[in-house]
Amino acid sequence: MKVITFGEIMLRLSPEGYKRFIQSDKFNVTYGGSEANVAISLSNYGIPVEFVTKVPNNEIGQSAINILRSYNVGTRHIIKEGERLGIYYLEKGASQRPSKVIYDRKNSAISKSNINEFDWDEIFNGANCFHISGITPALSKNLANISIAACKKAKEQGLLVSCDLNYRNKLWARKEANRVMSEIMKYVDVCVANEEDIEKVFNIKAENTDVEKGKLNIESYESVAKQIYEKFDCQIVACTLRTSLSANDNKWMSLAYDGEKTLQSKEYNIHIVDRVGAGDSFSAGLIYGLLNKMSLEETLEFATAASCLKHSIEGDFNIVTVDEVNNLVEGNASGRVQR
Amino acid sequence: MKVITFGEIMLRLSPEGYKRFIQSDKFNVTYGGSEANVAISLSNYGIPVEFVTKVPNNEIGQSAINILRSYNVGTRHIIKEGERLGIYYLEKGASQRPSKVIYDRKNSAISKSNINEFDWDEIFNGANCFHISGITPALSKNLANISIAACKKAKEQGLLVSCDLNYRNKLWARKEANRVMSEIMKYVDVCVANEEDIEKVFNIKAENTDVEKGKLNIESYESVAKQIYEKFDCQIVACTLRTSLSANDNKWMSLAYDGEKTLQSKEYNIHIVDRVGAGDSFSAGLIYGLLNKMSLEETLEFATAASCLKHSIEGDFNIVTVDEVNNLVEGNASGRVQR
Amino acid sequence: MKVITFGEIMLRLSPEGYKRFIQSDKFNVTYGGSEANVAISLSNYGIPVEFVTKVPNNEIGQSAINILRSYNVGTRHIIKEGERLGIYYLEKGASQRPSKVIYDRKNSAISKSNINEFDWDEIFNGANCFHISGITPALSKNLANISIAACKKAKEQGLLVSCDLNYRNKLWARKEANRVMSEIMKYVDVCVANEEDIEKVFNIKAENTDVEKGKLNIESYESVAKQIYEKFDCQIVACTLRTSLSANDNKWMSLAYDGEKTLQSKEYNIHIVDRVGAGDSFSAGLIYGLLNKMSLEETLEFATAASCLKHSIEGDFNIVTVDEVNNLVEGNASGRVQR
Amino acid sequence: MKVITFGEIMLRLSPEGYKRFIQSDKFNVTYGGSEANVAISLSNYGIPVEFVTKVPNNEIGQSAINILRSYNVGTRHIIKEGERLGIYYLEKGASQRPSKVIYDRKNSAISKSNINEFDWDEIFNGANCFHISGITPALSKNLANISIAACKKAKEQGLLVSCDLNYRNKLWARKEANRVMSEIMKYVDVCVANEEDIEKVFNIKAENTDVEKGKLNIESYESVAKQIYEKFDCQIVACTLRTSLSANDNKWMSLAYDGEKTLQSKEYNIHIVDRVGAGDSFSAGLIYGLLNKMSLEETLEFATAASCLKHSIEGDFNIVTVDEVNNLVEGNASGRVQR
Amino acid sequence: MKVITFGEIMLRLSPEGYKRFIQSDKFNVTYGGSEANVAISLSNYGIPVEFVTKVPNNEIGQSAINILRSYNVGTRHIIKEGERLGIYYLEKGASQRPSKVIYDRKNSAISKSNINEFDWDEIFNGANCFHISGITPALSKNLANISIAACKKAKEQGLLVSCDLNYRNKLWARKEANRVMSEIMKYVDVCVANEEDIEKVFNIKAENTDVEKGKLNIESYESVAKQIYEKFDCQIVACTLRTSLSANDNKWMSLAYDGEKTLQSKEYNIHIVDRVGAGDSFSAGLIYGLLNKMSLEETLEFATAASCLKHSIEGDFNIVTVDEVNNLVEGNASGRVQR
Amino acid sequence: MKVITFGEIMLRLSPEGYKRFIQSDKFNVTYGGSEANVAISLSNYGIPVEFVTKVPNNEIGQSAINILRSYNVGTRHIIKEGERLGIYYLEKGASQRPSKVIYDRKNSAISKSNINEFDWDEIFNGANCFHISGITPALSKNLANISIAACKKAKEQGLLVSCDLNYRNKLWARKEANRVMSEIMKYVDVCVANEEDIEKVFNIKAENTDVEKGKLNIESYESVAKQIYEKFDCQIVACTLRTSLSANDNKWMSLAYDGEKTLQSKEYNIHIVDRVGAGDSFSAGLIYGLLNKMSLEETLEFATAASCLKHSIEGDFNIVTVDEVNNLVEGNASGRVQR
Repeated sequence: MKVITFGEIMLRLSPEGYKRFIQSDKFNVTYGGSEANVAISLSNYGIPVEFVTKVPNNEIGQSAINILRSYNVGTRHIIKEGERLGIYYLEKGASQRPSKVIYDRKNSAISKSNINEFDWDEIFNGANCFHISGITPALSKNLANISIAACKKAKEQGLLVSCDLNYRNKLWARKEANRVMSEIMKYVDVCVANEEDIEKVFNIKAENTDVEKGKLNIESYESVAKQIYEKFDCQIVACTLRTSLSANDNKWMSLAYDGEKTLQSKEYNIHIVDRVGAGDSFSAGLIYGLLNKMSLEETLEFATAASCLKHSIEGDFNIVTVDEVNNLVEGNASGRVQR
Repeated sequence: MKVITFGEIMLRLSPEGYKRFIQSDKFNVTYGGSEANVAISLSNYGIPVEFVTKVPNNEIGQSAINILRSYNVGTRHIIKEGERLGIYYLEKGASQRPSKVIYDRKNSAISKSNINEFDWDEIFNGANCFHISGITPALSKNLANISIAACKKAKEQGLLVSCDLNYRNKLWARKEANRVMSEIMKYVDVCVANEEDIEKVFNIKAENTDVEKGKLNIESYESVAKQIYEKFDCQIVACTLRTSLSANDNKWMSLAYDGEKTLQSKEYNIHIVDRVGAGDSFSAGLIYGLLNKMSLEETLEFATAASCLKHSIEGDFNIVTVDEVNNLVEGNASGRVQR
Repeated sequence: MKVITFGEIMLRLSPEGYKRFIQSDKFNVTYGGSEANVAISLSNYGIPVEFVTKVPNNEIGQSAINILRSYNVGTRHIIKEGERLGIYYLEKGASQRPSKVIYDRKNSAISKSNINEFDWDEIFNGANCFHISGITPALSKNLANISIAACKKAKEQGLLVSCDLNYRNKLWARKEANRVMSEIMKYVDVCVANEEDIEKVFNIKAENTDVEKGKLNIESYESVAKQIYEKFDCQIVACTLRTSLSANDNKWMSLAYDGEKTLQSKEYNIHIVDRVGAGDSFSAGLIYGLLNKMSLEETLEFATAASCLKHSIEGDFNIVTVDEVNNLVEGNASGRVQR
Repeated sequence: MKVITFGEIMLRLSPEGYKRFIQSDKFNVTYGGSEANVAISLSNYGIPVEFVTKVPNNEIGQSAINILRSYNVGTRHIIKEGERLGIYYLEKGASQRPSKVIYDRKNSAISKSNINEFDWDEIFNGANCFHISGITPALSKNLANISIAACKKAKEQGLLVSCDLNYRNKLWARKEANRVMSEIMKYVDVCVANEEDIEKVFNIKAENTDVEKGKLNIESYESVAKQIYEKFDCQIVACTLRTSLSANDNKWMSLAYDGEKTLQSKEYNIHIVDRVGAGDSFSAGLIYGLLNKMSLEETLEFATAASCLKHSIEGDFNIVTVDEVNNLVEGNASGRVQR
Repeated sequence: MKVITFGEIMLRLSPEGYKRFIQSDKFNVTYGGSEANVAISLSNYGIPVEFVTKVPNNEIGQSAINILRSYNVGTRHIIKEGERLGIYYLEKGASQRPSKVIYDRKNSAISKSNINEFDWDEIFNGANCFHISGITPALSKNLANISIAACKKAKEQGLLVSCDLNYRNKLWARKEANRVMSEIMKYVDVCVANEEDIEKVFNIKAENTDVEKGKLNIESYESVAKQIYEKFDCQIVACTLRTSLSANDNKWMSLAYDGEKTLQSKEYNIHIVDRVGAGDSFSAGLIYGLLNKMSLEETLEFATAASCLKHSIEGDFNIVTVDEVNNLVEGNASGRVQR
Repeated sequence: MKVITFGEIMLRLSPEGYKRFIQSDKFNVTYGGSEANVAISLSNYGIPVEFVTKVPNNEIGQSAINILRSYNVGTRHIIKEGERLGIYYLEKGASQRPSKVIYDRKNSAISKSNINEFDWDEIFNGANCFHISGITPALSKNLANISIAACKKAKEQGLLVSCDLNYRNKLWARKEANRVMSEIMKYVDVCVANEEDIEKVFNIKAENTDVEKGKLNIESYESVAKQIYEKFDCQIVACTLRTSLSANDNKWMSLAYDGEKTLQSKEYNIHIVDRVGAGDSFSAGLIYGLLNKMSLEETLEFATAASCLKHSIEGDFNIVTVDEVNNLVEGNASGRVQR
C-alpha cells in the first residue's frame, strides 16, 4: 500500500493566540498545504505515503521537508530548486470575528515547475492511490497541465485517484477552474468537496442554503453530490458540511453518494482550536477507509470523526492515530481525561 | 472632521492566558484607558482624532504615546511631565471565576494636572466632537474641574459633546460622582452608560433587574434612558446591556432613546477573548455613526456590532475596520475563515 | 487547627495551550499530586497544614518543596532522599479530543519509602485532621502498609480521617485496591469518591449510568453512597458527579450522605481551563467545612463551588480564597469583572 | 528641518535567540529596511522625517506603517498598493557561526513601482535633506530610474543628498551597480560606505585588507575615501570599519574625508546583541550632525557612537536618544546601571 | 541563629532579554529589594531569617510574600496593609548601553508605615543579627526614624548590626543621607559599601578614581574604609569594588578592614547575566561568615565569591548554596559542566 | 556508505535562558544522547545513518523518533517497548557558575533491553561503520554485553568501529568501566576521548594538567594518546582538549595519533551557546573525514571545526552542513553576516 499526494507546502505564519496581525511581534511557525496535510494524516495512520512538491533549496524549504519527514512522510521525490516557499498568514478568529488568511504564495518554487520535472512513471511505481486537490492546478498554467497529466497517468496505471475540489477564489477564476477541474474529473474516482466548492467550480448550487449565514440544507447537498457523480462518473462523491455558528463553534458532518445510496454521517458540535486542514483530514480519512476496504458507511464515519478531531489540533496537520479516531467513531466523545 | 478625547491612559499588566496573579512570572504589557480606547477606535475608522492627556517623561509614558501613534492617534497635545503612569493589573477570569482588576493609578501624572495646563481653545481648534468619560473627573478634584471646564468650552464652541458615565466605585463616592456628573451632563449631547452606571451615579434604578445574577429587564432600561434624557436634555441617551452568563460567555445588546423613539439593537451571544474596552468601543461606534450622519438605528447597530467585535480582541483597543463592523451588521456573524 | 496530608507530589509537564506532545518544544512546569493539592487548597483557606512526603535531594525535589512553601504549606516532615521525583505528562484535550496523562512515576522517592521513615506520633502532634487518597497506598506495597498504619494511628489519636478513593488503574489492580482500601476504610470518617471510583474499588455500581458516554443517574449514586456508608461505618460519604459533554465543557455537582439524609449540591456548567485536581479541591472544601462546623449542606455547597472554581485555574492547585468560594456559593456565578 | 528617506521596508522574521531556522517554531517579527532605519533613527533624535515607500494594502503592510508611526516617522507619502511586502529571514550567528540572511523580497510592492507614482516636488516640499541607499535602485530597473530622478530633483531643490552605497550582491551585479550608482553619485553630497561597498561598486580596493579574515588597513581606507571624494565631487565621504572577531564580538570605528582632512573616530569593542542596521544608524548620525552644524569631528564621533549603540539593540532600528549617544561620545562606555 | 532584615520589597518589571522598554509587550515579573535579597541569600545558606516589611493586602503584595516563603524566609512579621507595592522597571543593558532603572516606588505601603507598627522587641526575640540598608531610611521621614529606632534596639539587645550604605540619589539628598546614616552608624557593627556610597553619603572620596570611566584605585579605598571604621567605631568595614568594562563584562572584588588589617579578596572577571542584587549578596555572604565564626579572610572570600556568582543569576536573588560558593572559593571557576 | 550508531536517546529538559531549575516554570524540550547526536551530525553531512535504540511506545518515545526522522536519520531498527524514556535535566551555567546536569535515566527502555532484541547481522547489513560511546555499556550489565557483542560483530563484518570513551561517573565505577571498555577496545579502530576520559577509564594520566582549574598540557596528552594506541592497537586515537575559562568562554582544540605522527588541530576561542554534544560532533566529524578518505590532518581539522560550531547551536545536535564546516576550516571564523 502506498499513497502519493502532490501539491504545495507553504510556510504558515500566525499570531499567538487570538492576537490580530497588527498586534503581533511573534508568529507561530508551521508548514502546511492541502495535499501535504493529507499525506501526514495518512502517515499517522500507518500508511506509506510520498509527498511530491518543489521547494527552494534553502533553510525555509528544508524546514518544510524536515517536518514532513518527522511524520514519516516520504520526501525523496521533492525537488529542491526555485526561489521561494509560498507563505500564508493566518489570523485566528474568535466569536463573531472571522479567521483571516493572507496569501503570499505567488512565484513559489512549485508554481514555477515545468511538466518534465516530474517523472510520474517513477513516482507512481508501487503506489496504489494518488491524491490531489483543486489548489494545485490553480497555482499556474503549468501546474494545471501537470496536474491533468498526473491524474491521467495515475488512472492509466490503475491507482485510485482522489481529488478534493478545494476552490480558492484568490487563485483562479471560476471559469478557469471549471475548465481545468472538468478535465481532471475525468480521471477521478473519489471526489471530495465542501459546502461551497461544487457551486463555485461547477455551478451546481444546493437549494435553500446560505453558507454565510450558517444555514445548510442537507437534502440539497445530496442532490448536488448525485449530479457530480453522474456528470463525471466517479465511484464516490463525498461532501463535508460545516455549519458555522461562530469562529469558535461549528457543527460538522458529511455525506457521500456511491451511485446507490446517500449516506449521512453523525454530526459533531465542535469547539474549535484550529480548523485549517479539516477538509484535508476528511480526504485522508476517506482514503484510509477505502484502501482498507471498510464499508462506505464505516469510511464516512471514520473520515468525519477524523476531521472532527482535526479541529482540536493546532496547525494544519491532523495528528491523530487510527485508535483515537475509532474511539470517537465508537461514541466516546466526552473528552474525559485518559490516564 | 476631528474628534478630541481626554482622559488617562494606563499601563495594563496582565498574566498570560488564564493564570492568576499569584502564578505569574510574566505580564503581558499593553496600554489603555477609556478615552484613549475611544480615540484608537475612531482612528481605526479613519477619523482624525487627538487624545489629550499627561504622562511622565520617561520610557513608560513614551511607550503609551508610541502605541497611540502607531494607531495614528494625534498626540501633540499630550503633556510629558509628572511622576508616574497609572497602572492597572488585570487577571482574566474564566467560567464562574470573574476577571479581576487591581488599580494602582493614584498620583499618576494626569491626576495631578492643573487647570491651566490644557488650552482648550487651541485643542478644540478645528474639532467637531469631544468625548470624555466619568473616569476622568473621578481621578482628582482638579480633574473634575478641568473636565467640567472642557465640556463647557466644547459646548460653547459647538462641538458634539459625548460622555460615557463609566462609574468606578474605587475612584469616587456615588455622592461626589452625582454632583460632578450632573454638572458635566449640562453640556452633554450624547450620554452613554452601561447597565450599572445610571443607578450608581444618578440613583435611577432599572426595575426587576439583578445585574450580579445576570438578569436584565430591557423595558426598565428604556425607562431609565428616558429619565436621563429628560433630566439633562441630551440629544441621545444610549445604554449597553450585558448579560453575564459566565466569564467566558456574555450576551450583549444596547438601546438608545432620542426623545422620540427607543431603539433596541440586535443581541449577540459572545465568546469572550477580552471584554475590557467594550463600552469604549460602543461609544466610538456611536460617535462614528453620528458624525457620518447615519440614522440612529444604523448608528446603534454599528456601535453594537463594533463593541461585539471588541470582545474578540486582546487588549483594551478595538482593532477593527469599518468594513469589518459593517460585515457583522449585515449579519455575517458565522465567523467563517476569510481567505 | 492543623491538617496533615500524605502522598506523592510529582513534576507535571504539559505542552503549551492545546498542543499535542508530539508538537511541543516547551513544557509548562508545575508540580502536583492529590494530597499536595488538598494541602495547598486548605492553606489558601487559612488552615495550617503540613504535607508529608519524600522527595529526592536535588533541585527538582527542592522545586516541589518551594512551591508548597510559597503557598504556606508546612514542609518540615518532608524527607529529602531517594532517586527521583515522579513525573506526569499532561496533554490538554479540546472538544472531542480527551486530555491525556502519561505517568512516569515508578521508582519515585516516596514509592520507595520504608515504614520506619515516618514518625506518625510526631507528625500528628497538634493535628486534628488527616487526609490521604487511594493513590498513596497504590504506589507500592510499602506505601500500602504505611498508609494503613498512618490512618490507624490518626484514628487512634482522634483525628478526623478523610480519604478520597481516587482509583488509578495504571497503579494497581482492582482486587489489590479492594483489599487495601477496605483496610484503610476501617479508619475513615469522611470518604470521598468520584463517579467511577466506588465501582472500580468496591464493585458497587451505579445503575443506569454510562460514564464514558456522559450519562449519570443521580439516584443510583445516592444508593451507592449509602452502601459505602453502611459497609464501612463512616460519618460522611461524598461523591462528585462529572458529566463530560466535551473536553471543554463539563457539568459538575456532588452529593453526600451522612446516615440521615442525602444532599445534592447545585450543578454547575463549567467551561474548563484545567480540570486536574478538581476532586482534590472538593476534598479540601469538605474538610474546610467540617473543621469549621458548617452544616453538611453548607459544607457540600462550599466544596462543590470550590471545586467548580478549580476548573478555571491552571495547574493542579486550587488557588482561591474562602471569600471567592463563598461568593460563588451565594450565586454570583456571572463572572463579571471585579474592579 | 525635515528629512526624506526613500526605500523598502520589509518584514523581518528571525528565530528566537540563537536558534537556527531549522529548529524554529516561532519567529520574532519586526520590520526594517535601510532607509526606514535611517528615518526612525532621525526621528528618535527629534528630527521631523518622512519615509517614502510602497506597501501592499493588507495587514502586513499596515503593520510596517504602524511601527514607523509609533516612532513618529511621517507616513503620508506611503503608497498602499501592490501584492506583497518583501521579507527577510534573519538567523542570528554566534561565535564562529555567522548570522545568515535569506531574502524573499522579489516582487514586493515597492519593487514594482512606476516612476509617476512619486511626486517628488510635493514630497520634497519643506524638506532639507534626502537620504537613499544603494539598495533602493538595486530592487528593479524602475527603481533605479526613480532613485536617480529623486536624487536629481533633491539636488535641484537644494536638499542635502545623502547616500549609503550599501551594495547587495544578491540584488544586482557589480557592473550594473557601478553604472547606476555612478549616476546617482552625481547628486550626492554625503557618501557613506562600509569596508566592502566601495570595492564592490567602484572597484576601488583598500590595500592590505582581508575583510573575511578580519584584517583592515585604515590608511588604505583613507585613500579609498579620497578617491571617491575626488571622483564624484562630494562634500563628505565617510566609511564605517568593522573588524569581525566573531559573530559576538566586533570592533567598530569610522573615518571621514571632507576634502581637507581625514578624520578617524574612536574605536569601540562591541559585544553584539543585533548588528543589523548599524550602517543605517551611522548614516543617521552623520545627517544629524550635519543638519545641526556640528563639526565634522563631532559629527563623526556622534555617528560612530550612535552606531556602536545600535549593536546593543534588538531589531533593525536604533532606539536611542541624542542624550544616550552623547553620553557615550563623552566616554561613559562602562555600561553602569543608571538608576 | 536567626537574622532579621528590614526594608522594602518591590515588584520588578523587566523587558525580555535585551529589549528596550519601548519595544516590550511582555515584562518578566519578579520581586526584589535590598534587604529582602539579603534575607533570601541567607535562607539559601540554611540560616533562619525573617524579613520585615509592609505590603498591600492584595495579590501583588501576596505574590511578594509567596516568593519569600518559597525560599523559606520567615514572613510572619510582614504587615499586610497600605495601598500599593513599589515597582521598579529594569531594562537590561548590553555592551556600551547601560542598564536602566525607573523607580515607581513612591507611596508604597512600607514608605507610609508608622513607628508603632513594628514591635522590635517581639521581632528581635531570638535573633542574633539585624541587617538594614541605606535604602530603608531613605524611603520616608518615618522610615528614617523607624530605621534608627530598630538599629538602636538591635544594638541594645546585643544583635550584630549590619548595614549596607546603599546610597540612592533618587530617594534622598546627600545631606539628608549624611544626617540619618550618621545616626544609624552609631549602632552598626558591620558596614558595607560599594565604590560610590561612601563618597556620596559621607563625603569621603577615594583618590585617583573615576568610577564612570571604570578606573578604581584600591589603595584609596583601603584608606576610605579605615576612615569609616574610625569615624563610627565599627567592627568591620567592607567595600565591594566593581570595575565596569561594559554592561556585559565587569571585574569584581572587595576589601575589608577590621581595625587591624586590610584584606583584599580575589578579583573575578565576570560575564554578566544580571547584576542587580550583587551588593546584597555580598552583605549576606559577610553575615554568613561572621555568624559562622569564619576568619575575616575566609568571610571576605566567601562573600566575594557569593556575589560573583550572583551576577550569573536572573533576578534580584542570589540562588546559590553554601557548597556552590565554597566551590568557587576553592578556585573552581572554570564553569565546567557538572554531571 | 552507511553508518550505524547505537545508544540511548533521552528527553532533555532545560530552563529558559540562564534561569536556575528552581526559578523555572517552563522547560525547553529537546532530545539527545551521545550516539543519537553522532547520527544526526552525520545525516546533516549527507551520510546515510541508522540509529539503533529502544524507546517506550508512547508519545514521549515517539517524539524522540520524530526528531531523528526530521533530520533524516533512519529509525527502522528502533524498538518501541519498555516503560520510560530516560531524562536529563540541564541547567545552563554562566560565567563562574557551571552548567548542571541531573540524570533521571534509570530504568529507561534501552537500559532494560536484552541481548536477543538486536539482530546485528541484519542491522549491519550494508553498513560500513559502527559508532558507540562508553555511555551505552554503562547503562546496564545487559547493555555492556550487548555493546561488546555489537562491536565484535561489527569488527567481524569489516565495519570501521568507532568508540568515544565518554566516561560518566554517575553511571558506573571506574573499575567496571575499565573492565568493559578494555573488552570493547579490542574491536575499536577509532578511539575518541576528551581530556578526562582516558584517565578515568584507563588510569593513564596526562602530566602537569589540572582540568578543574583550566590548565592543560598538550604534550602530555600526546603521550596519553600514544599509550592508548599501543595498548589497544587502534588505527587512530583522537582527543579533544577543552580549556574552560568560564561557563561562557572555552578554548577548544584536538589532537590525533595514527601510529606515525601526532597532529594538533587549530585552537578556537569559543563563546558558548550550548556545549552539550561537542564531543559527539567531533566523533561525527572524524567519521565523516575517514569515510571520505580525507587525510588525517584534514579529518582532524574538519572534526575540530565541526565541533567548534556545535558550541554555537542550541540543543544536543550539531545542525551544520559540510559547507559550513569547511568554511570555518578555511579560516572564515569572523562570523560576518551572510546575505
